[in-house]
Amino acid sequence: MVKLDFEKMGGLIPAIAQDAATGEVLMLAYINPEAWQKTLETGEVHYWSRSRQELWHKGGTSGHVQKVKAVYVDCDADAVVFKVEQVGGAACHTGMRSCFYRRVEGDRLVTEGQPVFDPKKVYGDK
Amino acid sequence: MVKLDFEKMGGLIPAIAQDAATGEVLMLAYINPEAWQKTLETGEVHYWSRSRQELWHKGGTSGHVQKVKAVYVDCDADAVVFKVEQVGGAACHTGMRSCFYRRVEGDRLVTEGQPVFDPKKVYGDK
Repeated sequence: MVKLDFEKMGGLIPAIAQDAATGEVLMLAYINPEAWQKTLETGEVHYWSRSRQELWHKGGTSGHVQKVKAVYVDCDADAVVFKVEQVGGAACHTGMRSCFYRRVEGDRLVTEGQPVFDPKKVYGDK
Repeated sequence: MVKLDFEKMGGLIPAIAQDAATGEVLMLAYINPEAWQKTLETGEVHYWSRSRQELWHKGGTSGHVQKVKAVYVDCDADAVVFKVEQVGGAACHTGMRSCFYRRVEGDRLVTEGQPVFDPKKVYGDK
C-alpha cells in the first residue's frame, strides 16, 4: 500500500473529494491509516470522523457513497485527492452538492446553488 | 471579515488552491487568521508555513503568486477553497503544475505530466 506521512498532523491527513467528471471540489475531511486502507481496498471513500472519533464510511447511512475513480498524492505525501463519483449527487450533509457552497463577498457569505436533496428525508430528523 | 473556525485545529485551517479556469486542484496548505486576512486584503494567497513557522506569501520569492478569483468557505467554516489564477503556471515547488501529480496505481505512485519550469532556475540551487 502506498505510504503517506501521517506523522505530521498527529495521525491524520486532509483528503479532498473532487467530482471526477466536473472537477468540482465536493468536501474536505480527514483520513487515518485505517481509512486510507479501507478506501483503497473497497473503492469507496472512508474518512476518520474527528467529531465521532470513528471510521466513517461516507454515505454508509444515506447510501450517498463516493466511488473512487482515481487517487492522487501530493509532493509531500501529506494530502490526498480522491476523484469520485458522488452517488446521490450531493456530498454535504446540508443537501448541497458541495460543502463549499458559500462564496465570500466582502464581509458576507453568499450561498450559491440549491440543495440537491432534503437532509431531513435522507438522514431523518436528528 | 468573514469568520472561520480556527479553533478546531490549533489555529490552522486547510486551504485548497484550485485553478479558477480548469478546476484542477493545485495544492493544499494551511492558513492562520493573519494569512486569511492578508489573502482577502491583497487578493494574493497567503498561507502559514508550518515548516518555517511564518507567514508565507505564495510566489513572493519566485513571482509565481496565486491571484484570488473567488473564495469559498465550507459548511463548518473549517476549510476554504481559493479559486486562483496561478501565475507562472505551476503551484508545486517541484515545477509541476499541481502538487497532486502522482496517481496511486496499486502499490505504486505514477507521475502524471511534465514540469512546467525547472525549480533550480526559479528558486536557485538551495
